This record gives sequence, C-alpha cells and structure tokens, in this order.
Amino acid sequence: MSLAEKILQGDIRAAARLMRHVDDGMPGAVEELKRLYPYTGKAYIVGVTGPPGAGKSTLTDKLIEAFRSKNLKVGVVAVDPTSPFSGGAILGDRIRMNRHATDPGVFIRSLGTRGHLGGLSNSANDVVHILDAMGMDVVIVETVGVGQDEVEIVRTAHTTLVVMVPGLGDDIQAIKAGILEIGDIFVVNKADRPDADRTARDLSIMVDMKERSADEWCPPVVMTVAQKSDGLDALVEQVEAHRTYLQAEERLQRHEEEKSRQRFSELLKERLFAQVFSRIDAEDRVKDIVQAVARRNIDPYTAVEEILKSHLR
Amino acid sequence: MSLAEKILQGDIRAAARLMRHVDDGMPGAVEELKRLYPYTGKAYIVGVTGPPGAGKSTLTDKLIEAFRSKNLKVGVVAVDPTSPFSGGAILGDRIRMNRHATDPGVFIRSLGTRGHLGGLSNSANDVVHILDAMGMDVVIVETVGVGQDEVEIVRTAHTTLVVMVPGLGDDIQAIKAGILEIGDIFVVNKADRPDADRTARDLSIMVDMKERSADEWCPPVVMTVAQKSDGLDALVEQVEAHRTYLQAEERLQRHEEEKSRQRFSELLKERLFAQVFSRIDAEDRVKDIVQAVARRNIDPYTAVEEILKSHLR
Repeated sequence: MSLAEKILQGDIRAAARLMRHVDDGMPGAVEELKRLYPYTGKAYIVGVTGPPGAGKSTLTDKLIEAFRSKNLKVGVVAVDPTSPFSGGAILGDRIRMNRHATDPGVFIRSLGTRGHLGGLSNSANDVVHILDAMGMDVVIVETVGVGQDEVEIVRTAHTTLVVMVPGLGDDIQAIKAGILEIGDIFVVNKADRPDADRTARDLSIMVDMKERSADEWCPPVVMTVAQKSDGLDALVEQVEAHRTYLQAEERLQRHEEEKSRQRFSELLKERLFAQVFSRIDAEDRVKDIVQAVARRNIDPYTAVEEILKSHLR
Repeated sequence: MSLAEKILQGDIRAAARLMRHVDDGMPGAVEELKRLYPYTGKAYIVGVTGPPGAGKSTLTDKLIEAFRSKNLKVGVVAVDPTSPFSGGAILGDRIRMNRHATDPGVFIRSLGTRGHLGGLSNSANDVVHILDAMGMDVVIVETVGVGQDEVEIVRTAHTTLVVMVPGLGDDIQAIKAGILEIGDIFVVNKADRPDADRTARDLSIMVDMKERSADEWCPPVVMTVAQKSDGLDALVEQVEAHRTYLQAEERLQRHEEEKSRQRFSELLKERLFAQVFSRIDAEDRVKDIVQAVARRNIDPYTAVEEILKSHLR
C-alpha cells in the first residue's frame, strides 16, 4: 500500500513519514503528494502571525482547544523560531504544548526556518496539503510575521490573524506595516497590560484608513488574554464570521484560485531551477562559471542568459 | 553616453537613476549592470544585522562617520523596515541621518521590503554592485536579521556584524539562533544598559561552543554605546582585523567565489522563472492551469512537470 493510501485510511505514522520524506527531498515523495491532491481543499486554513513575543503559540494552543471542543480535528504547522511547537522557545512553553500530544484529533508539525530544499514556503504548503488530505477540519499555520518568506506562508490561509501586543517598542511595531495588509482579524493579545486600549485604537484607526467597498470585509480588532482564555470565544466567533463572508459570492472559489496560482508559481520556480542547475552541475560547468564570474571574466547576467539560451526551447 | 559610462565618471545622479531603473525592471537596466560589472569587486562589504530595536542604524551612522574620518567613500544599502535610512523609523532618527546627505563621499540607498520584481536579495545585490562600481571603498548593508531573505542578503558581506542588545525578551533573543552562524563580529549595543555584561558573556559562551580549527576566525564580542560613539574604535579595529584575516591564504578569493555562486544561482532562478512564466502567460495558459489546479482536475506538481517538459530542452 502506498503512503498516500495509508494516510487516506487515517494512518498517522504514514503522514509523519511522508512529511519527513518531503522535507528530505526523497524521490517518491512528490508522487505521494500527487495521489493526495484530489482529497485536499476541504480543510479550513487559519494563519496566525505577528512579531516575536506577541503570544502567538499560547493563542494557537487555545485555538486548538476551542476547535476541539467543537469536535473539529486540528492540524498545526508551526514555522516560527520562537514557537514552542517548532522547538524554539523556552522549556515551560514546550511542556505546556505537549498536552495535545496524546489527543488523536490533533496533529502538530513544526518546521525549522532553514534547511528546506525547495524553500520554506513550499515545505509548509506541502505539510498543509498532507494535513488537509488526512481529514483535518482546521489547519492552523503559525509563523513569525517579520520576514518576507514568513508572510508569504500565511498569505494562503483562509483567515489570517495578526497578533499584536501592547507595549512593544516603536521599533518592533514598525514591522507591522508589512503585516497589516494581510490581517483578516487583528488580535491585541496580553490585553491586560497597560496601553492595550491604545494599541487596539491605533489598529482600528489604521484599519479604517483603508478604503473598502460596502460589501468588503472590514478586519475587526479583538482583545484577548490568551493565557486566561479571555476573549477566545469572541475571536473564534470572528473567525467563523470571516468564514461565512468567504463562503458568499464565490469568494472562496476566488481565494482557491489565488492560492493555486501562488502554489503553481512557487513550484514552477523551484523545479525549473532545480532541474537546470542539476544539469549544468552534472556537466561540471557550475565551477567554471562561478570562477569566471568571481574573476570578472564574465558578468553573472550574461552567464545566466547563456544558460537560458541553451536550456530553454 | 550610457548610464554606466556616466556612473564610472562619478555621476551620482546617473547612479541613482540606474538604481531606480533596476528596481522598476526597466529593459535596459541589465545591460548597464553588465557594463559596470568589470569595475566591481573592489569595495569592502560590511553587513549589519540584528533584531529590531538593537540600534543598527545608529551604529551604521557611526560607522559611516568612522570610515569617512579615514577618508574612505561609503555606500549604504538599508533593507530594514525599522531603519531610518529606509524610511521606516521614527522622525528623529531620520533627521539625524540626514547629516550625511550633503557629504559627496556618502551615498545611501534604501530598499523597501516589498515590490521588488526579482526578489529583495537580487535588488540589494544590484545596488551593492552599482555602489561598488561607483568607487565606494566600503559598502554597508543594513538588514533586520529576522527573516530568511534578510539573512541571505548579508551572507555575501565580507564582514558581518550581528548587533544584539541587553534586555530584549527571551522571545526575541530566540531569533538569534539563526543569525549566530553568520556573525563575524558580535556587537552588544546599548551596553550601558543593565545586563549588558551578561548578554556579552552569553554570546561569548555560544561563540566558544563552536569547534574551530586553529587558524579559523573566532568572532569577537564588542560592546558599544553607538549613540555616544563608545566602543566604535574597537569595533572598527575588529572589522579591520577580520579584513586582514580574509586577505590571507586566498580566503578572499574563496569568499568571492562563494558570493559569485550565490549570485549566479539567485539570478538563474529568477530569470528562468520570469522567462517561462511570461511565455505561458502570453499563451493565456496560466489562467487555465490555475483553474484546473483549484478545481482539483490536475495537481500542481503534474502541471509544473508538463511545463518543464515543453519548455526545457
């Protein structure tokens, strides 16, 4: 039986094995992903992003709990060097997370931020794809929202939560410029801290500044204290409201097409490069080109154009 | 006269124009870059990276001053949403930076973190390339060291300064795992804060943990208060020590080859994708593929394989 068949029959270990195979770039892995593909597209994908220290993983932990209480199966992909899920954070956090380890309705997969052959975003997408085919109802993708890569990853989520926190310095808040545009819901976490109201107000003002048509989604600002589960019900309600919004007027279909376009482009870029590079590497030409470029005998632009000419039809 | 010729004759406006053309993906820009390429490879490239709030731009400002006092021409590329150079930070910082604006021996170019056709790293490299050809003795590349992209950018520097700061939370310090490996010199900035000694000691311990051969560079930890110029002389001395180290035993040549390899790979990836994508887009095929993938009529892996088959020789 293929790994894909086992996964479709609910074999958790087979899923874990395929995820490892994908990460290691094993030859057969792509064939398994192809077999799973027709069974994907059912999971609802929730992105959780924000600066380090915003409490994203505590919030993720509570979201798992909330979705589980509705009897939904939950997959988690953690791409965050500061997340206890991905092994980056302090010990206490990691132990806290382990309470889900024995729940068969929860599957957590963490990705380090380096060492992914086809790029981090491709790896994360492949894991979401497997979790989706496994029959997870909700897949939470947690990333630290600072680099471009990390922002790309949550861009494919159905609903993206941008988690902010009161009292981080101006320097850090400056990062939010980049992640503001991708938020469907803004969360002011640790809302029992001073200045929480101001942070929420600032966010609301920024949200209001953007022009929208009357039927367009206007991102709400939700205040939470994830550690005490405060505000979690309101947050889950907003996630459901955004889902309802997406389900109307073919928005979900357009979202799916946008996601497919991004996935196709990303894969095309990686595979084109991998194939052409391995060919010229097999011909032992990479070393010569690199030396010629380093010695200024040829410029890298011309070197690349010559490769394109001889390898593209 | 071509832009390249003007730039080689010292025309600052021509340089600024070419940088804009490169960013906008203007057709002739690559030809100009090719013309400049033989004149590159002379500038010494210093990377400055670290978490938001570490004081990277104040440090960069002081480094400009230090290099200028040695009568060296200094170029700066700022890729950092929190940097006053790239327009991201608070007003006071920006005004402070402007003191270099009237110095003809300083050229500062900032890059936003989005909207770069060929990727942020390619854009940053092209700007370094132009600054190098302009005859800048030193080029400082400032990036916020959190995302993978941003780390890639400083990887090509001759000497990389990783700037840390006492008292940032554990969450934020966790980021350092990724940037530790790329540091040639560690800077504990704002060293007049409490806990500075502990931060420096922690860094030293981590540096010592890595196994090194006897002749390998061991990254020093330098304490600075950039705002008061404290420790700047020691820092510049360490930059020079690292430069002397690189100049011995063909290390500089190996570094140049590694840089050329990375540049070539990056360009190859971008150009292959751009060329193939624009072809299938011209044939109006992208829309069909995307719809088929979204509807699960084809999986994205197979779709990409078919494109590779028909476009690669």
